[in-house]
Amino acid sequence: MDGAVAAGFESVREEFARVVAAERDDYAGQLVAYVRGERVVDLWTGPGFTADTLTGVFSSTKGAMSLVVALLVQDGVLDPDQRVSHYWPEFAAEGKQDVTLRELLAHRAGVIGADAGFSLEELADDRRIAARLAGQRPYWRPGVAFGYHAWVIGALTGEVVRRTTGRSIQELFEERVRAPYGLDFHLGLPDELEPRFATTLPMLPTPEQQAEIDAEVSEPESLGGIAFNEHRADAPELWDFPNQRIARAQGQASAGGVASARGLAGMYAAAATGMNGRPPLLDAGTMAAFAQIQSIGHDVVSRVHKAFGLGFSAVAELYPFLGQGAFGHSGAAGSQALADPRSGLAYGYNRRRYAYPGGAAPENEGLLRACVTAARATR
Amino acid sequence: MDGAVAAGFESVREEFARVVAAERDDYAGQLVAYVRGERVVDLWTGPGFTADTLTGVFSSTKGAMSLVVALLVQDGVLDPDQRVSHYWPEFAAEGKQDVTLRELLAHRAGVIGADAGFSLEELADDRRIAARLAGQRPYWRPGVAFGYHAWVIGALTGEVVRRTTGRSIQELFEERVRAPYGLDFHLGLPDELEPRFATTLPMLPTPEQQAEIDAEVSEPESLGGIAFNEHRADAPELWDFPNQRIARAQGQASAGGVASARGLAGMYAAAATGMNGRPPLLDAGTMAAFAQIQSIGHDVVSRVHKAFGLGFSAVAELYPFLGQGAFGHSGAAGSQALADPRSGLAYGYNRRRYAYPGGAAPENEGLLRACVTAARATR
Amino acid sequence: MDGAVAAGFESVREEFARVVAAERDDYAGQLVAYVRGERVVDLWTGPGFTADTLTGVFSSTKGAMSLVVALLVQDGVLDPDQRVSHYWPEFAAEGKQDVTLRELLAHRAGVIGADAGFSLEELADDRRIAARLAGQRPYWRPGVAFGYHAWVIGALTGEVVRRTTGRSIQELFEERVRAPYGLDFHLGLPDELEPRFATTLPMLPTPEQQAEIDAEVSEPESLGGIAFNEHRADAPELWDFPNQRIARAQGQASAGGVASARGLAGMYAAAATGMNGRPPLLDAGTMAAFAQIQSIGHDVVSRVHKAFGLGFSAVAELYPFLGQGAFGHSGAAGSQALADPRSGLAYGYNRRRYAYPGGAAPENEGLLRACVTAARATR
Repeated sequence: MDGAVAAGFESVREEFARVVAAERDDYAGQLVAYVRGERVVDLWTGPGFTADTLTGVFSSTKGAMSLVVALLVQDGVLDPDQRVSHYWPEFAAEGKQDVTLRELLAHRAGVIGADAGFSLEELADDRRIAARLAGQRPYWRPGVAFGYHAWVIGALTGEVVRRTTGRSIQELFEERVRAPYGLDFHLGLPDELEPRFATTLPMLPTPEQQAEIDAEVSEPESLGGIAFNEHRADAPELWDFPNQRIARAQGQASAGGVASARGLAGMYAAAATGMNGRPPLLDAGTMAAFAQIQSIGHDVVSRVHKAFGLGFSAVAELYPFLGQGAFGHSGAAGSQALADPRSGLAYGYNRRRYAYPGGAAPENEGLLRACVTAARATR
Repeated sequence: MDGAVAAGFESVREEFARVVAAERDDYAGQLVAYVRGERVVDLWTGPGFTADTLTGVFSSTKGAMSLVVALLVQDGVLDPDQRVSHYWPEFAAEGKQDVTLRELLAHRAGVIGADAGFSLEELADDRRIAARLAGQRPYWRPGVAFGYHAWVIGALTGEVVRRTTGRSIQELFEERVRAPYGLDFHLGLPDELEPRFATTLPMLPTPEQQAEIDAEVSEPESLGGIAFNEHRADAPELWDFPNQRIARAQGQASAGGVASARGLAGMYAAAATGMNGRPPLLDAGTMAAFAQIQSIGHDVVSRVHKAFGLGFSAVAELYPFLGQGAFGHSGAAGSQALADPRSGLAYGYNRRRYAYPGGAAPENEGLLRACVTAARATR
Repeated sequence: MDGAVAAGFESVREEFARVVAAERDDYAGQLVAYVRGERVVDLWTGPGFTADTLTGVFSSTKGAMSLVVALLVQDGVLDPDQRVSHYWPEFAAEGKQDVTLRELLAHRAGVIGADAGFSLEELADDRRIAARLAGQRPYWRPGVAFGYHAWVIGALTGEVVRRTTGRSIQELFEERVRAPYGLDFHLGLPDELEPRFATTLPMLPTPEQQAEIDAEVSEPESLGGIAFNEHRADAPELWDFPNQRIARAQGQASAGGVASARGLAGMYAAAATGMNGRPPLLDAGTMAAFAQIQSIGHDVVSRVHKAFGLGFSAVAELYPFLGQGAFGHSGAAGSQALADPRSGLAYGYNRRRYAYPGGAAPENEGLLRACVTAARATR
């Protein structure tokens, strides 16, 4: 294992060593934590993996998307309680006229996908997704339920942003977040950084895990199937999406981001605590508003218990040892990134091999607990 | 087994044969499917059972009720977002003044029964039910939850229909649906068809099933008890309801319908795809609006996960291999009927012996999967 | 066992004897029931326990709080659908301006605690709690979920009462409920009654129970941790709260009440049926309105299925053999008190030793079933 930890964070290194020891020989991953803007954990390991290696972070991208929306709300440019159709008139079709930006960000709009699904080219392009979904009838009456808008929430909010500012989420993220803080978190990976990109590797389930996967019949026309675009035969498999140059080049705002753990954790440090002597991007009120639970309970797409703030996941419901008000997002291959304002922690974890069973990898629990425990002890 | 299947639907016949082989010797049932208006499956079996045998279909009746309401909404006669008390002023009593027709159709009104319960004579008569429930206090604050209005949703919507059109649901169903399409689905069985009626036979649980039934103590005063009228000692048992002439003669709109599988499937073909050269009764927008999920999650009456559209069950939540937008309803003895507009399938299944554990019989899953798979293959 | 039962209630005595026989030797408890205002069960047992022994009843106190609110609503002084901030302007802070009294009473406001927690002195004083919570940001967006406001609902409603009437809940309870009916249910135990007070004894779990307790890691910063003030290191343990003189002296309206089972049952008899020749405090409409289910399903604090009316628990969801419209509340150490207007039953149970696993003690189910069965038989 390479890298370093600050004094007081030795237990994090030990926990990461335990994780690595329990993985396959070809495991590669990165773990970074900031506390009140100081990088206190900076670890990486695995064949060909350095601190600068970039991978697709899947839905951890939604954290970047949500941060841009939060900045615009903080600026008074967007109002969460305004109707989406106010900003984007075409969205009013098919009974969506009263859906608010708040409901959209809380996964309550019901516009989880398109009846005919999306090709790779469409899926990589937020504007094409948005154009298709403007006329889509919601899969449930908006507001009566919530369900993960897995592939499309970034495109839908992105269209609101574009109509309002004339700029894309990707452009605003670059200008206001990535470049000023020098973050390795890219919504749209430039050609010159391609040599640092490492493809996501497919899951290698054990026979027992494979049996469980096989037992869960995936129904392409179910709400989950539609939200994950499984009803579209010619679309790429989810795990392979960022491995397509077209996907990572455009930095699709739901799942097309590319980052290192330094980039993941750094973005949340920039947002919540500031870093490198710069102030935090978000004020306390904006953070609290975006972290506040807006949807909690049975997610009708994922069919498990979930909690969302505005765009961000309300991660304290998943990791109850975090403080209320923590906000972040995880990605399909196993990445997790978040800020916990009460302890001052910003956390980023990334791994190359898609983890079983998909979503925040199980090792995040121990790693995150070690980080937050140490962060509180150093206060 | 008698009857026939069209080319490409042989697998449906095989599945039905498996079902029959697994049942008792006295099993009697009917299975019918239409695809885009053509009858492609028409099977029946069992002692004394023909294609023309009629039985009580219990809550599959709610599909007929919902179709009548959908027609009136399509005509602009009813507005789902209008308050019920607008159409029916007496309904405003006891805090129900703001309940909308949409909430009523989505089982959110909380008027699941009457404190004193209903006698057989009352239960068979939608007008008497409605008169009693006008003054009933809801069992939960309208809108905060949903729960199956098992015995009464047809009476409540029926009163809205009667106040608005001067006609009953039964009359409108006869004129606009049953007669024009020549369907064997009767809300009010005429005397002359009585010879074709076969009584529902009681459940014959195995000892293990009986033990499970006994373990689930039925509490007559619980929400489920009240909704199923179990707190009324002199009321008929549910399974025996359509066996009472008074019940099937009046075709109570929640559970008093009498049909064959041809009638069940034919009604959904008439509604969704047209049949026999006639156009569909519902346009695409009306279908989508009535199929859209309005209530999903924990049903406080049934205490299981459920999903309702407007009056219809959102059956894709139950059978996730169906397309979103499918709509239908099942009945207590085991019947199931539905339309899946995406595949063009209309499906009807009926059986004489009340199936364990009550509601859509378990065999519907395999039968329906076979039908929809074949329907898609023939597209 | 001491005390008496009326003719027809012998089965209750037998059930209580079974309960006592299954407990430890030092078990002490009281069981009282009224039917239509007549005391028909009056039993007590255990070392040093008499009919007049008083103990802390924890959250059964919320029944007294809710009764005072119900009286003010009945009087037209409070309107459940009015905004809390109408009565109490400071409450409007941090996005709470539109929270209604109804939502507050239904545990939907999200103001379950304070970020920094409460000391014992604060926790014992409703006015200090209210002052702290006026500026608290809700832990979820008000209305999108419900969760048990365990320590604070009495302070929040109490501040509404105080701003409106100039009196505290404690004063109004004394004047309108306790004194007129001579009830041993005290919100603020006078010095002269201290000799009758018995401390709550800590739970004595079996090794198996202790293992289950240990397995459920309590996370102080989770929603449950905050609601139960576990994130505050210097606060008293819950079980020990009424054992502090400061707590019981002030009769904090969420959990600071002190009563005997006579007091518990007597209060519900006074409320629902009248007693000792006096009429009931609540009319039928008010009772039904406060008992009506307002929140039902997953409680995000307790993480179990719950049902609340207005302040009261909708106890028929917990004890489905009760009639709909029953209302009451239980307390952490095991007490339960309620009224079942349909059977005319008022029930109170109290025990000295904190019961596993906390909340309404398991023995309430059998005791209450025996009481309601006998009450119905004597109608």
